[in-house]
Amino acid sequence: MKKCILVDVDGVMADVYTTFFKLHEQETGEMLTIKDIAGLLEADAFMNQRKWVSTPGFFRDLPLMPGSREALLRLNDLYKIIVVSLATEFPYCMTDKQLWLHDNFPFITWRQIVFCGDKNVLKADIMIDDHLKNLDHFKGTTILFTQPHNMLIRDTYHTRVSSWAEIEKLLI
Amino acid sequence: MKKCILVDVDGVMADVYTTFFKLHEQETGEMLTIKDIAGLLEADAFMNQRKWVSTPGFFRDLPLMPGSREALLRLNDLYKIIVVSLATEFPYCMTDKQLWLHDNFPFITWRQIVFCGDKNVLKADIMIDDHLKNLDHFKGTTILFTQPHNMLIRDTYHTRVSSWAEIEKLLI
Repeated sequence: MKKCILVDVDGVMADVYTTFFKLHEQETGEMLTIKDIAGLLEADAFMNQRKWVSTPGFFRDLPLMPGSREALLRLNDLYKIIVVSLATEFPYCMTDKQLWLHDNFPFITWRQIVFCGDKNVLKADIMIDDHLKNLDHFKGTTILFTQPHNMLIRDTYHTRVSSWAEIEKLLI
Repeated sequence: MKKCILVDVDGVMADVYTTFFKLHEQETGEMLTIKDIAGLLEADAFMNQRKWVSTPGFFRDLPLMPGSREALLRLNDLYKIIVVSLATEFPYCMTDKQLWLHDNFPFITWRQIVFCGDKNVLKADIMIDDHLKNLDHFKGTTILFTQPHNMLIRDTYHTRVSSWAEIEKLLI
């Protein structure tokens, strides 16, 4: 039986930071860099972040994380891929998120998508995520995807990767 | 630690059949009874059912299954309740479904809601569902909620209930 991988969307499949930086500059005139916000959770780094992610449309046009489509296309043959997003906090955004997935990852079917409020209820062999709150309680193999909010964390027992090429190296 | 119960929405928390019968009569002039459709899956019993459940608005105003709110209010204190719906097949309906849950079960938070395409990825102790396709592969205790489509099934190793009062008797 194929091993099951839980793959997070925002900050792993979707490059949310490029859009966060752009919106922040549009709304405040301030050009932030990764250095300015390293180590801060998204909502602390960008004062309007909670407003943005609650607004219909936000998740519809996010840029892809480089290499994510090609890597997942290959991994989808070898593993049972389940795409998981903590999305029920934002009930007006799930349709956008699913349509974005269908547009950008057409090989991921609706049967492979989970929107939930707590990833602890899911069972799988491997979890790829950018948030420790999800990885820390997971029983299987954990892969931490580097994003600005987690880049200063040094002591982690999760395997850290900074690109989809590194994920492929680990898993294929 | 509290035991975890996965509770299905349609046909368990929401009385979908009352709405199916009403819409069928409105659209065809034909008044069906439970006897007419016993044993048929929803889409075979009502020729427009797939259209209805794909249409935004359908899940927003469904009547409650009698006793479900009161029973779940009590069970929510004793168990970890996770509400699960196979909803990613209908990406335009998840917002309706979640708002309906918030209106009718305000004590169920967004953290307790899962929309997915395959319940096999979930782990819990107990599952309450009206579909064998979900119950048959579940590792824990399984409770089959009687609905017209499953009422003719006799040989089942799931515990059958026909009301929320029966569920309470089993679990409290």
